[in-house]
Amino acid sequence: MSDGPGRERQRDVYIRGAAGETPDVPPSYEKLRDAAREEMTDEAYGYVEGGAGSGDTALGNRRAFERRSIEPRVMRDVSERDLSTRVLGDELSAPFLLAPVGVLSIVHDDADTGMARAAASLDVPFTVSTVSSDTLEDIAEEADETHEDGDATRWFQLYPSSDAALNRSLVERAENAGYSAVVITVDTPLLGWRERDIENGYLPFLDGEGLANYFSDPVFRGSLDTPPEENEFGAIQRFIDVFSDATLTPPDISEIADYTNLPVVVKGVLRPEDARRAVEVGADGVVVSNHGGRQVDGAVAALDALPRVAEAVDDATVLFDSGVRRGADALKALALGADAVMLGRPYVYGLALDGEDGVREVVENFRADFDLTLGLTGLRSVDEVGESVLRRSE
Amino acid sequence: MSDGPGRERQRDVYIRGAAGETPDVPPSYEKLRDAAREEMTDEAYGYVEGGAGSGDTALGNRRAFERRSIEPRVMRDVSERDLSTRVLGDELSAPFLLAPVGVLSIVHDDADTGMARAAASLDVPFTVSTVSSDTLEDIAEEADETHEDGDATRWFQLYPSSDAALNRSLVERAENAGYSAVVITVDTPLLGWRERDIENGYLPFLDGEGLANYFSDPVFRGSLDTPPEENEFGAIQRFIDVFSDATLTPPDISEIADYTNLPVVVKGVLRPEDARRAVEVGADGVVVSNHGGRQVDGAVAALDALPRVAEAVDDATVLFDSGVRRGADALKALALGADAVMLGRPYVYGLALDGEDGVREVVENFRADFDLTLGLTGLRSVDEVGESVLRRSE
Amino acid sequence: MSDGPGRERQRDVYIRGAAGETPDVPPSYEKLRDAAREEMTDEAYGYVEGGAGSGDTALGNRRAFERRSIEPRVMRDVSERDLSTRVLGDELSAPFLLAPVGVLSIVHDDADTGMARAAASLDVPFTVSTVSSDTLEDIAEEADETHEDGDATRWFQLYPSSDAALNRSLVERAENAGYSAVVITVDTPLLGWRERDIENGYLPFLDGEGLANYFSDPVFRGSLDTPPEENEFGAIQRFIDVFSDATLTPPDISEIADYTNLPVVVKGVLRPEDARRAVEVGADGVVVSNHGGRQVDGAVAALDALPRVAEAVDDATVLFDSGVRRGADALKALALGADAVMLGRPYVYGLALDGEDGVREVVENFRADFDLTLGLTGLRSVDEVGESVLRRSE
Amino acid sequence: MSDGPGRERQRDVYIRGAAGETPDVPPSYEKLRDAAREEMTDEAYGYVEGGAGSGDTALGNRRAFERRSIEPRVMRDVSERDLSTRVLGDELSAPFLLAPVGVLSIVHDDADTGMARAAASLDVPFTVSTVSSDTLEDIAEEADETHEDGDATRWFQLYPSSDAALNRSLVERAENAGYSAVVITVDTPLLGWRERDIENGYLPFLDGEGLANYFSDPVFRGSLDTPPEENEFGAIQRFIDVFSDATLTPPDISEIADYTNLPVVVKGVLRPEDARRAVEVGADGVVVSNHGGRQVDGAVAALDALPRVAEAVDDATVLFDSGVRRGADALKALALGADAVMLGRPYVYGLALDGEDGVREVVENFRADFDLTLGLTGLRSVDEVGESVLRRSE
Repeated sequence: MSDGPGRERQRDVYIRGAAGETPDVPPSYEKLRDAAREEMTDEAYGYVEGGAGSGDTALGNRRAFERRSIEPRVMRDVSERDLSTRVLGDELSAPFLLAPVGVLSIVHDDADTGMARAAASLDVPFTVSTVSSDTLEDIAEEADETHEDGDATRWFQLYPSSDAALNRSLVERAENAGYSAVVITVDTPLLGWRERDIENGYLPFLDGEGLANYFSDPVFRGSLDTPPEENEFGAIQRFIDVFSDATLTPPDISEIADYTNLPVVVKGVLRPEDARRAVEVGADGVVVSNHGGRQVDGAVAALDALPRVAEAVDDATVLFDSGVRRGADALKALALGADAVMLGRPYVYGLALDGEDGVREVVENFRADFDLTLGLTGLRSVDEVGESVLRRSE
Repeated sequence: MSDGPGRERQRDVYIRGAAGETPDVPPSYEKLRDAAREEMTDEAYGYVEGGAGSGDTALGNRRAFERRSIEPRVMRDVSERDLSTRVLGDELSAPFLLAPVGVLSIVHDDADTGMARAAASLDVPFTVSTVSSDTLEDIAEEADETHEDGDATRWFQLYPSSDAALNRSLVERAENAGYSAVVITVDTPLLGWRERDIENGYLPFLDGEGLANYFSDPVFRGSLDTPPEENEFGAIQRFIDVFSDATLTPPDISEIADYTNLPVVVKGVLRPEDARRAVEVGADGVVVSNHGGRQVDGAVAALDALPRVAEAVDDATVLFDSGVRRGADALKALALGADAVMLGRPYVYGLALDGEDGVREVVENFRADFDLTLGLTGLRSVDEVGESVLRRSE
Repeated sequence: MSDGPGRERQRDVYIRGAAGETPDVPPSYEKLRDAAREEMTDEAYGYVEGGAGSGDTALGNRRAFERRSIEPRVMRDVSERDLSTRVLGDELSAPFLLAPVGVLSIVHDDADTGMARAAASLDVPFTVSTVSSDTLEDIAEEADETHEDGDATRWFQLYPSSDAALNRSLVERAENAGYSAVVITVDTPLLGWRERDIENGYLPFLDGEGLANYFSDPVFRGSLDTPPEENEFGAIQRFIDVFSDATLTPPDISEIADYTNLPVVVKGVLRPEDARRAVEVGADGVVVSNHGGRQVDGAVAALDALPRVAEAVDDATVLFDSGVRRGADALKALALGADAVMLGRPYVYGLALDGEDGVREVVENFRADFDLTLGLTGLRSVDEVGESVLRRSE
Repeated sequence: MSDGPGRERQRDVYIRGAAGETPDVPPSYEKLRDAAREEMTDEAYGYVEGGAGSGDTALGNRRAFERRSIEPRVMRDVSERDLSTRVLGDELSAPFLLAPVGVLSIVHDDADTGMARAAASLDVPFTVSTVSSDTLEDIAEEADETHEDGDATRWFQLYPSSDAALNRSLVERAENAGYSAVVITVDTPLLGWRERDIENGYLPFLDGEGLANYFSDPVFRGSLDTPPEENEFGAIQRFIDVFSDATLTPPDISEIADYTNLPVVVKGVLRPEDARRAVEVGADGVVVSNHGGRQVDGAVAALDALPRVAEAVDDATVLFDSGVRRGADALKALALGADAVMLGRPYVYGLALDGEDGVREVVENFRADFDLTLGLTGLRSVDEVGESVLRRSE
């Protein structure tokens, strides 16, 4: 074993194993999830794992990966593999980022700063959610601390609020705090019908979780009669009132793209015409995603939607999430047109299990797995990943 | 969260949840069914849940839904959604009715009146079965009590008896009691071979259940030597003799359509030519249904039959039942040509679990789920639901 | 409920049920099998249930039924249904016979005579196996005793032995004992690799089971140095030596067809060209069968082979077995070209559970189920069953 | 029952069974695996059973077999069956060999010599792994001891090392020790991401297992400062450094083919163009294989790849492994173009369960199963196996 994150990780794990030390975070996603569940409250686990309605969408996401097989090439020199890629001006050490996930505090006290510190320490970009548990400024600062150059790449995800001034304030704060892209989520004009949360009567925001960016925002504060420190209930009430903009249409995207210098990505697109429209009105890219199955019960598998969308927006950036669990999943998404993928639940479970360290383990495993899968497929760089490496399972 | 039954229901549940109160009736159909089972006798559960023969038909009904995916549109203003629709002259607050289900007394003492009161209180139409546990007149009266305008929309379902005068008497009673449509079930010339009931030796009618409309009917009573109050066994015997008309053909439908002023719907149709024939002889519409898998073991999935039937009877009303469990199911059936769907087992399990209140919870959850699914699909009204929102799962 | 075996059976069961009496033999095949297993030795259960190798063939047989759905017609007068049909000159009260199954004594002491008495009492033809536990003459005599006209229809199944004279002797004995057809099994030139039996080291013949027809046969006895009564081991040895004719080719069929007056059916055919060849050399029909999955691991599902074979031998009789469990299965096989089906494991489990009575219950349930399924499909006779009642499940 | 390994094995097992003796090694692969697991450490079981990543590849291998059915012919004289075939100049008593499997010592003390002795005693060729637990010379010697002619057919598998001189030394040693073919594995330029091993922190080589051929090799020893006997850690370190050649390309194959007199087979090919290229540069054949699902997570099923590869390299030898469990699997692979198959995990579990004897039982069962399946399919020799015996499962 020599170079590359895959062989390095293998060597590290096996050598520690020979010395009797086994990893705390299982490399199997299913085992990781089950182990994390043990550490989480039922409410938190239900919130993270649960999908809309029947859960068929999340299941369908996985099936879509299983329906595609990899047809590896052999007898190619794969001793050197270059995993890096450029996305929206950012250099990625490997073709994935951490996806935005809200209210991480319900999962572990390390929450967003733990997530960000782990990602930054491995030079993997991350995306901070609008409903993060720490302020976007604090998260940025902590991330820079662990990054080798003190300059961690971070993106900011925006849930468009019905208060346009608040949206602008949040985007400008992100810009000021060194974020390099804005991801506008458009698949949440309403909150999905999430049966587990309904069963538990659980919406973490109502407990004041995930509102750090709001409570610290001058526009949001200005819209309150009394500051959150004095009247949390009233502030939560205001959040509920403005949280999601069910009236959002392409001109709203356009407006944001106009006032920010950052590249704008529209997240939650499954139809080619929607992707095309987003780009027409100023987006630099899209994230093909069904929100991990959390919004529309019975929605098409995100991976099935990916090639149609990628074809429709040829020059724009195409990212992908929803169901990515292992290196082979990333390879398949790249082969179907994604420039990079976003990793969600896996790191959340790593966080649940072992905080910042758990996220780091998950990310290292994922990167190692991707590196080896790439090489064993006979490829040496992200550019070489094309549709010809895939075959429909019969 | 603001307007519409979906957001209202979410707000209500989450706010109650934040105060420590969780709902008695699980929003998940599977959990609801399992919880209801605990409250029911084995015989009653077997009767409600059981299908004909192997049970493959009921399973196939679900698979047919799973084979269709929803392809949501984003960046559309879905802040206002109009769920209402007109079916056979009735205004529906949302595109569904409660399906006719017999012998509800085996499930809960609230039985049909509980069902009807719950539905009426939410302005959702319901269908009273020929073999209801209360008389159709009593049910109508109770329903009007809980309806906001004192005028609950109700339909009457007729199992054609071999005594034509009895059929006419029942239909005229329904007409007099303010029912606004007659649903003639044509898939039960014989009773299906229901293995669970055979195993349990259980047919509730033989215990005198579900015979309220017969025992109170002047024609039925006139055909007895001794009134049911004095000789229940003899009355049950007579019921058995006349219950189902295995000779029914299109002219029988025609005859009923001629003597009633109410619109007539033929329920239990799976073939286009049968649907066309029903309309030709005077029916105003059909219900595509395989009786929830209770009649023909191995019958085609009702959802698979729906588009063919809908195409065949273009102008007539097309309703659908068999396997509808969640909002997405309703959306899919509408997309394939149904004007509205009928909800069966879900409300029966709500009734089993918590009587009238349980039905109300189930109906509220279903409507909320449909509302949100509609909006998250990018649609604002029932009219906008078309086949283009669906995609065959790959 | 009025006429026909379906409604009669329903009435009988439900009325007994209302009086608190439930049936001993579950109508569900799966429950029947599981209940029977409790009454059987592991070896016997393994022998009956087990398939060749992986068991995929038996599983595939069921899947093939599940892949076809019934598309019922409604609004047809189905009050009178005629289940009878003629097969090879015999009048069948319903389109099925009991399949030949060997060594029934390992399952219940009533063995073949119990099976035959039950079938005859219901006027259902049965097929006696070469390796029956009672002599074919005794079985015939017992069957006639319970038949209403004292004349039970029976067929004889021949495992061709390598001793041609023995084959002729057996066939002539059957002819003399009033059997009306000879079923020559051609899929057993070798015994399949049955893992459960190998695991149990169990072949019932080695314990002397199933050899009644051999030990009583003058040709077989003449080939022994010492009669079986005195040297059972030697007789078993001889049986092993001659049991199956691995050299059998079409001329052997021809020879048998020449010397018997009975119609000859070739059982175990899956390829059209084999069926055609069998008919060319003198067979009157074929049984499409993969021996219930007991011979070739991974063989095509018998139901998938049926339409191709039926088309190939247009005028000859086509029977079917392998996987028939319920009325709908029989209907599907008829729709795909079978003139009648053969029922195997279901009655064996009835026998295991309750001897002769158990077989009777199983047969009555099967006939009732078929009758109702036929009527609910909108059909009134076996002749009306055609391919148009089926649809490929999507 | 008379001739052939199938009937011989049946007779043997059943007669022993009648005497109360049942086999120690279950004929069912699944039961065998589960029984073996009980005898193995978790680490060893995880190493043998585990696949890359999700394990989907191994699952897919099995599904590919299940998707093909056998369409047997009947009424053919199959009393004599010739299982023999020639592969690369070697006479095979049946169309299969034992596949190379490394570090067998973690499974049972009998390890490779046990495997080889069992195979040789049954005149079945075997393949010794580069990372065998005994030296290739010792294994050869032991094998010859049990072979009836004292000349057991054996092949040598080479994991190309980055030290070309070491490769040459190993190949020449094999040639000198009477091996008759070299199998070059090309699907392991890197080690797959095996989650179970990662979870267990287990790589047996780090414990010094499987290094017999290295530690005994003059070239390898020459590359060490201190001999392994004195510094095992350093020797293991060197092994890790050179183990796998991630730079391997077709010229490396060519080089080996040039310096050895033995036929060369390239193992781990899934793409037609790779197979063609291997043959162009001097290989005599290929093994279509995805390494039993151990290398690329989500790789195409080996059986699905087989016909494409077989067509591409018409005249060269085509072998197959990955998922072969039973006789029918071998038949299917032959039908799709393989000249013979390689058996892996089944014999490893036999070894785990009962050492050399366990391997023998497994091989005898497999051969018996293949023999009977061949005959029952209506075939008398390996040559008669063609694609026409298969049918896609519907």
